[in-house]
Amino acid sequence: MADPTMMLRRMFAAAIEAAAPARCLPAHLPPPPAGRTIVVGAGKAAAAMAAAVEAHWPAERPLEGLVVTRYGHGVAGCRRIEVVEASHPVPDEAGVRAAARILALVRGLGADDLVLCLMSGGASALLALPAPWIDLADKQAINRALLRSGAGIHEMNCVRKHLSAIKGGRLAAAAAPASVVTLMISDVPGDDASVIGSGPTVPDATTRAEAAAILARYGIAVPRSVAAWLADPAAETPKPGDEVFRNTLAVMIATPMMALLAAAEVARGCGVTPLVLGDAIEGEAAEVGRVLAGMARSCVVHGVPAAPPCVLISGGETNVTVRGRGRGGRNLEFLLGLALALDAQPGIHAIAGDTDGIDGTEANAGAIVTPATLARARGLGLDPRAVLADNDGYTLFAALGDLVVTGPTRTNVNDFRAIMIG
Amino acid sequence: MADPTMMLRRMFAAAIEAAAPARCLPAHLPPPPAGRTIVVGAGKAAAAMAAAVEAHWPAERPLEGLVVTRYGHGVAGCRRIEVVEASHPVPDEAGVRAAARILALVRGLGADDLVLCLMSGGASALLALPAPWIDLADKQAINRALLRSGAGIHEMNCVRKHLSAIKGGRLAAAAAPASVVTLMISDVPGDDASVIGSGPTVPDATTRAEAAAILARYGIAVPRSVAAWLADPAAETPKPGDEVFRNTLAVMIATPMMALLAAAEVARGCGVTPLVLGDAIEGEAAEVGRVLAGMARSCVVHGVPAAPPCVLISGGETNVTVRGRGRGGRNLEFLLGLALALDAQPGIHAIAGDTDGIDGTEANAGAIVTPATLARARGLGLDPRAVLADNDGYTLFAALGDLVVTGPTRTNVNDFRAIMIG
Repeated sequence: MADPTMMLRRMFAAAIEAAAPARCLPAHLPPPPAGRTIVVGAGKAAAAMAAAVEAHWPAERPLEGLVVTRYGHGVAGCRRIEVVEASHPVPDEAGVRAAARILALVRGLGADDLVLCLMSGGASALLALPAPWIDLADKQAINRALLRSGAGIHEMNCVRKHLSAIKGGRLAAAAAPASVVTLMISDVPGDDASVIGSGPTVPDATTRAEAAAILARYGIAVPRSVAAWLADPAAETPKPGDEVFRNTLAVMIATPMMALLAAAEVARGCGVTPLVLGDAIEGEAAEVGRVLAGMARSCVVHGVPAAPPCVLISGGETNVTVRGRGRGGRNLEFLLGLALALDAQPGIHAIAGDTDGIDGTEANAGAIVTPATLARARGLGLDPRAVLADNDGYTLFAALGDLVVTGPTRTNVNDFRAIMIG
Repeated sequence: MADPTMMLRRMFAAAIEAAAPARCLPAHLPPPPAGRTIVVGAGKAAAAMAAAVEAHWPAERPLEGLVVTRYGHGVAGCRRIEVVEASHPVPDEAGVRAAARILALVRGLGADDLVLCLMSGGASALLALPAPWIDLADKQAINRALLRSGAGIHEMNCVRKHLSAIKGGRLAAAAAPASVVTLMISDVPGDDASVIGSGPTVPDATTRAEAAAILARYGIAVPRSVAAWLADPAAETPKPGDEVFRNTLAVMIATPMMALLAAAEVARGCGVTPLVLGDAIEGEAAEVGRVLAGMARSCVVHGVPAAPPCVLISGGETNVTVRGRGRGGRNLEFLLGLALALDAQPGIHAIAGDTDGIDGTEANAGAIVTPATLARARGLGLDPRAVLADNDGYTLFAALGDLVVTGPTRTNVNDFRAIMIG
């Protein structure tokens, strides 16, 4: 059997590699059209996806375009497709300008032309183009109010789509009658194409009346410009079955589950039984750690839900209720909760990280936990329980030298967690 | 396939039935000894265990004894073994008197005599006999301080054993040279015999020096009587290998895992694939609900970790951080967290309950969740999110008529949760 932490690091790397555009994109490229090919796109993987397109597109066929990615996520190497960077998660003017240029690029195309749209996590913030008559500031205010309101993600997306000039299928409408092929890397449970980047190229089943009702339901103040826009028939998004979608195709080229299964194969190759618990785990990060610690303990004692040597693999996105003043992201919170609940249980090692390479705001993707983590931290004068209460996981794992650092991976299939029971 | 809620109720009933003394105890009864047989015991199952002993003990062989159970958990039908009731979880004088009488009963026995000790969840509080020189009030004060201190369960048990006149193997020491057979129903992950009722008949590997060190570590004020007792060699508990354990035997006759596996068999019989996630799940109850909701969603979308029709089964004990003023126990909190995270996802039903029949302080064991739960609650004017924030699950599930009511089951193998994905 492999060294546990080495195996866990290889599993995390395999999960990221499964979603690397250079690896997962080429097989899904459509054949070049008779006319022009315009590449557009947005998201943390946009630059890497554009580079993969360029690398495999016939040199003699026309190719041009513009994609927008997060600051620091650009890659060198694109010569035919322009790559710009913008702000995430809070949109900025660079993103607004890029979205406007993308819309302009796809307007006026003919039926022989192809739009290749490259979407990945983060696209929603990076393509923040308000609908006509609406100020970016008004749209942002409504977004902030929605986030505080308790509205569900589907309700928020309904509103966003109806206040946007590019989301909810409007990009496809602008590109018609050209063919539109959308290649997507999913970072959301359910892998719903209309959720990734709020679906610029896919039909929207929700209506502007629903959007208005949601704003009213949560008592959100609606500026006059927004009210006037929602009262206009032009605010309606293109619907399933609409003519503009006749030549569109959307393909999910990488998903969280594909990444988890790739990691599971690494474990199997090491003689360790993988059990994938799902790609949709959510909850307060430290509590998720406690819950999975309980399952790991049951593996040790009863061989249930899996018999050692085994590894419990899960994806999805936890959340952190910030109460302290420390540094670190949700994956480090998860790992602290896990380590405290395991209480140095022998034979259990774990890794957790964000596949985009950035857990929260620090420069690490995640970290490693071993049976010695708590004792080593205490040996350095750190109280792990106090560290967790202060949301200061970065300080602890950095002091231990147990951070997992990848740098921006230029893809994103959400979080990755693996707990090995030896 | 069976009606989901009917199947879930049958699974819960099967879990309880697997731990019913009438069913699981008789096969473990030792043969009658040449001399006397004294039955002692404590816990939520004590009366039912005593009744099972009486029902299967040869009528012509001597049998006498005393067991103590929680108020309301006594059963009619014991003629040879006296059953008394006392307070749980906060000990009272009735429990102290019962413990003293139990010690007196087993003193002075001979090598031909047998002590049959019946232990189950709750025994620790029901057998609260302070060591010599120590007031019950002092012992209670230390217990309360320990609970607030952040000390772990093993640290608390170490202290409790060394301040008790009956725990940590002292009951076995009193009974020697008689044989001691202890039949146990476990309500704790790990099924550690020295944890159930703080192990009155099993060796204690911890020392009085460790107990004193733990009190010092957490800065707990130690009354003079306690300090004097811990300084006395008599405070030391009997250790593994001690002569007093030469004729002792401890048998786990029912455990949480056995109950989960019995429920799994019911599901299998209905054509539904069971996946047991473990008997040691812990965490904030509503967050555990969110985590398991994520796994259930992954079953729906990916058939991972199990393909529908399937049921995710788990045991262990969640906790509730009380912030509101409502009514209801941890299982209802779990179900509310689950229902909110599932957001009326079609095809998913769930049950959760305490196998002792009492979830928290109300008269219900648990409740049922269906895809219609949230909408039906809102139809009654209840906001499920607000209900959860007020820790008021009882009001909601009572209004819906979806409580699961069993009355005291007179056994206890901790919590039971099952989520069926159709």
